[in-house]
Amino acid sequence: MASAREGSDEEVRDVALLPEPPRGPLQAARARASFPWRELALFWEGEDTLRFKNTVFSALENDPLFSPPRGGGLPVEKYQEVNFLRCKRVLEYSFLRGEDLLWSPQRISSLLHCLGAYDWSLANMLILHLLSFGSLIYTSGSESHLKYIPKIVSTEIFGCFALTELSHGSNTKAIRTTAHYDPTTEEFIIHSPDFEAAKFWVGNMGKVATHAVVFAQLYTPGGQCHGIHPFIVQIRDPKTLLPMPGVMVGDVGRKLGQNGLGNGFAMFHQVRIPRQDLLNHTADVTPEGTYVPRLKDARQRFGRALGSLSTSRVFIVALTIINLKLALSIALRFSATRRQFGPADGEEVPVLEYQTQQWRLLPYLAATWALDHFSRCLFLALRELQLGFLKNDQSARQAELGREVHALSSAGKPLASWTAQRGIQECREACGGHGYLAVNRLGDLRDDNDPNCTYEGDNNLLLQQTSNYLLSLWERRSQGGGRIESPLETVDFLDACPDILGQRFEGCSPEDFLDSSVPLAAYKWLVCYLLRESYQKFSQEKQLGSSDFEARNNSQVYYCRSLALAYLELTVVRMFHQFTHQPHVPPPLQPVLRRLSALYALWSLNQHTALLYRAERRLCCPGGCDGPP
Amino acid sequence: MASAREGSDEEVRDVALLPEPPRGPLQAARARASFPWRELALFWEGEDTLRFKNTVFSALENDPLFSPPRGGGLPVEKYQEVNFLRCKRVLEYSFLRGEDLLWSPQRISSLLHCLGAYDWSLANMLILHLLSFGSLIYTSGSESHLKYIPKIVSTEIFGCFALTELSHGSNTKAIRTTAHYDPTTEEFIIHSPDFEAAKFWVGNMGKVATHAVVFAQLYTPGGQCHGIHPFIVQIRDPKTLLPMPGVMVGDVGRKLGQNGLGNGFAMFHQVRIPRQDLLNHTADVTPEGTYVPRLKDARQRFGRALGSLSTSRVFIVALTIINLKLALSIALRFSATRRQFGPADGEEVPVLEYQTQQWRLLPYLAATWALDHFSRCLFLALRELQLGFLKNDQSARQAELGREVHALSSAGKPLASWTAQRGIQECREACGGHGYLAVNRLGDLRDDNDPNCTYEGDNNLLLQQTSNYLLSLWERRSQGGGRIESPLETVDFLDACPDILGQRFEGCSPEDFLDSSVPLAAYKWLVCYLLRESYQKFSQEKQLGSSDFEARNNSQVYYCRSLALAYLELTVVRMFHQFTHQPHVPPPLQPVLRRLSALYALWSLNQHTALLYRAERRLCCPGGCDGPP
Repeated sequence: MASAREGSDEEVRDVALLPEPPRGPLQAARARASFPWRELALFWEGEDTLRFKNTVFSALENDPLFSPPRGGGLPVEKYQEVNFLRCKRVLEYSFLRGEDLLWSPQRISSLLHCLGAYDWSLANMLILHLLSFGSLIYTSGSESHLKYIPKIVSTEIFGCFALTELSHGSNTKAIRTTAHYDPTTEEFIIHSPDFEAAKFWVGNMGKVATHAVVFAQLYTPGGQCHGIHPFIVQIRDPKTLLPMPGVMVGDVGRKLGQNGLGNGFAMFHQVRIPRQDLLNHTADVTPEGTYVPRLKDARQRFGRALGSLSTSRVFIVALTIINLKLALSIALRFSATRRQFGPADGEEVPVLEYQTQQWRLLPYLAATWALDHFSRCLFLALRELQLGFLKNDQSARQAELGREVHALSSAGKPLASWTAQRGIQECREACGGHGYLAVNRLGDLRDDNDPNCTYEGDNNLLLQQTSNYLLSLWERRSQGGGRIESPLETVDFLDACPDILGQRFEGCSPEDFLDSSVPLAAYKWLVCYLLRESYQKFSQEKQLGSSDFEARNNSQVYYCRSLALAYLELTVVRMFHQFTHQPHVPPPLQPVLRRLSALYALWSLNQHTALLYRAERRLCCPGGCDGPP
Repeated sequence: MASAREGSDEEVRDVALLPEPPRGPLQAARARASFPWRELALFWEGEDTLRFKNTVFSALENDPLFSPPRGGGLPVEKYQEVNFLRCKRVLEYSFLRGEDLLWSPQRISSLLHCLGAYDWSLANMLILHLLSFGSLIYTSGSESHLKYIPKIVSTEIFGCFALTELSHGSNTKAIRTTAHYDPTTEEFIIHSPDFEAAKFWVGNMGKVATHAVVFAQLYTPGGQCHGIHPFIVQIRDPKTLLPMPGVMVGDVGRKLGQNGLGNGFAMFHQVRIPRQDLLNHTADVTPEGTYVPRLKDARQRFGRALGSLSTSRVFIVALTIINLKLALSIALRFSATRRQFGPADGEEVPVLEYQTQQWRLLPYLAATWALDHFSRCLFLALRELQLGFLKNDQSARQAELGREVHALSSAGKPLASWTAQRGIQECREACGGHGYLAVNRLGDLRDDNDPNCTYEGDNNLLLQQTSNYLLSLWERRSQGGGRIESPLETVDFLDACPDILGQRFEGCSPEDFLDSSVPLAAYKWLVCYLLRESYQKFSQEKQLGSSDFEARNNSQVYYCRSLALAYLELTVVRMFHQFTHQPHVPPPLQPVLRRLSALYALWSLNQHTALLYRAERRLCCPGGCDGPP
């Protein structure tokens, strides 16, 4: 967080780090900026990150392997081949040090930012190999599995993560691949009972993966099932890429996007693997066939499971925002130079000057900044959580942090991925026909972003995790369980719920709305209101004789679903509000950041206006308005 | 509109027309239908249309040229080649008789329904060749141009419609291609002054078109410009497909969808064409170079221009709804068979049984029916309008009908194409990962549907045409211009505006909302309210010193834009309400059709709840609700 205004040495450094953009038709719009752009970039990213990204981008720019075409125009087979070569090349560059993989999610995120901005097929191939496969072996295995790590880094073996099956995605507990232990040979027998139990959608499995972490129901001799566990299974010969005996493996076919990545399926016919290839961090099986849980405390196991689910969702929040950044850069630059219509006989006007175009695009710009800030806060929390696991922290705070990060990432992924999905679509349409040309990339961004709404938990389903968290806090409190508070303080305000619900927002002037504190207060009211209503709705359903399962399902629409989204929006608004109002924000940057904060907060709150009216606690705005003034 | 319940002959006929669907996992859901599906299909489509569609579909099914792959998996060049062969084959089948092209938009629409359901690249190639090119020559030319018609039908020549330029899409008046008349050779000289004036986006021009209707600014000797006029220009040799001298023509490149269609660009370097190739229905140039307008009445020229703009928009409304039909069929069938989660230890539940899945998909199902009905009404109105033109009807009614159809199609295209865009995206997400597999087609539907939001007028811009129409009616009335009424009666209720604005919706019970009459009344109030507010906003802007251009632009967001959409939604709701409440609806079909009508009306109105609250005319609903009960 440096200032560019202190002296000429710094200025020279800043220009080297952030050179002038090329001269061209955008110059007129750029000259009208109300803030120093270099200072904003340095303040937002930090010199270290900017330098790291420059290193990565320069390497890609100067390497012919990364020359266009990026992939979209290539036949799928060719695209997958070149993407694999690019992935290996990225590993050869050693942008990350070994310890970054474990200790620096922010550094990993910066690398993925660069690779994703180049091509999501590349970034995701690396994520799946290094993180979903490599880090999982490291964290879920034990010392005997460390032998795989150098082979992973050198790509001697290439990995994938096989959980989802053809008929089971969201309901992972119900997957049907089996792993029966055979004490006579000290082996597990991996088996797919039928085609519906085939592993499906597995990224990297389509063409190139040699090994998979396969999740299967573990059975010990005598037939007892111990639930799902991860196993390392070799699926292809690394030299020939031919399937191993008993493994039927292939590509699921063309997808709407990310076609540089081969998603695969696999069926296992009585495939035998050594006992040692169970990833045995949480539980093991003795040579004789006795099941031995290692983490005996159920709460601890649960916390760790939530932590690992959270990791991928926290990453998706960060990655989906990159798509918004790219799409908005394209659409805003186009809009600032594209001229169409004008006053009679006058020159045509850049379309960005029109009210409608601003209304369509600028709220998404504000959302990009607010969500980007939220994403960083979430990364810091995730890092703290992961450090706690590594230190074997068994405190109540660690458990609470795990639940809070789980709740934030479970609604954060839906909010961020949907905002990106809608924002990219708006950018596509706002660029008219030119937005429909493939070369202008909005289509690839939309297609590559789309699965963020689905994988690592369908958005609508994930929101239930967050509303369940809030409802459980409410229930605990209503049963006299004491203050509501959490490590990141995102729910502490709920303690003042009765006071907040009694508030009325009267007599504020339109100017007040130009600061995010006003919508922030309204948001607190809204979340309290939705929480109370959701709890009542759920209780009513129960009283009418519904099971928990039914009552939960029938309390989603207009209640729990809205609650989870509103809580997350409030959190994003609050974090960005606090950040933009801190004294360390350089004065020349304060106005623009605070306007972004107010715009995001008002635009976001605007979806809930009906609810605010309905509850008769109105946002008073003289002259009347139901949108941002 | 037949009934299937009268006797066994009819039943046999109906089964032949609508055979039983194949037995399979959908059977359980189908068996629970609350209405006779064959009777509904016959009532909705009519026997004649069903028979015609069966003929077309059978022909395609039995012709190996139409075997999969449809196109998505092919390289672009191959896809364009096979699409062209398919287009020629469709013409060889002669599904349409010559007179259908002029007199039966409904029959054309049925053919396009079948072709579009197969592949939009095919349907659009045919539309551009036969309608945008062929019918335009017929209606905008004169007898001397009839020589082209047989060559068009036999595909001896292949056509395209070249209006848009690289730098001018929406603002067509500002296109910069020129056509200077040279009396010494009796030729027009077609010329592109620079690359920004290149014709761009022209469907069919990329690879296969031999002739184009090129729009250019017509100049007579002495340098007077008479505005844009259409000219027939040969761009390629029909034998070799090589460009004609002076023509630089090519493909604009890959698009997000519709890649079987080659969109092209063209620049003309002093290309000379005979004087006779001006399409001279509205104006001509004498051999000596004198400009002679043929339709002297400006209002008549304007009405005709609006009519031809309306035609393509009316078609887009119909065609975009096909995408909704296809996407919803895919998503609902998947949801009825995909099982995930369930009560503890119980069998898993089809996802369609979950509240959230129903809430996501069923309103789009209702929208499909309501919009489909609207689209038919619009076709009938268009047909009446076109008959009027052909009969040279100069009545005030014909002029009013032209304005009304223009207003309806200008907001109808945005409403229908956006509903389809959002509906397909919801279907994609509702099918989870399987929705992201290309083979399941939701991606192609989304990509192929997308340009409906852009071409023939950007949706946001088009809405201004509709709000301008409403504002002009309001102004005429406030200046004592008499009753507000229109041939299709879509604006007649505005005459009672003061009464409507005074209404309050109190004391209605939740049951009342199960009929569309309640939301219909609320919609009337809403449109009156938005019209009054929009007029006031525009007037205020003017009083503050804005030009008409500025005042109009600054009254869009929250005012004119909302007004145009609400008026169109009201019209769709009203037409479907009336249709479903007519006595000729067979009794077994009434409940399901009326529920669809109520669901669409409530879901659609739900977007405007904040406005209803704000204006203190609340939809009263005991217990409180801001969504469909």
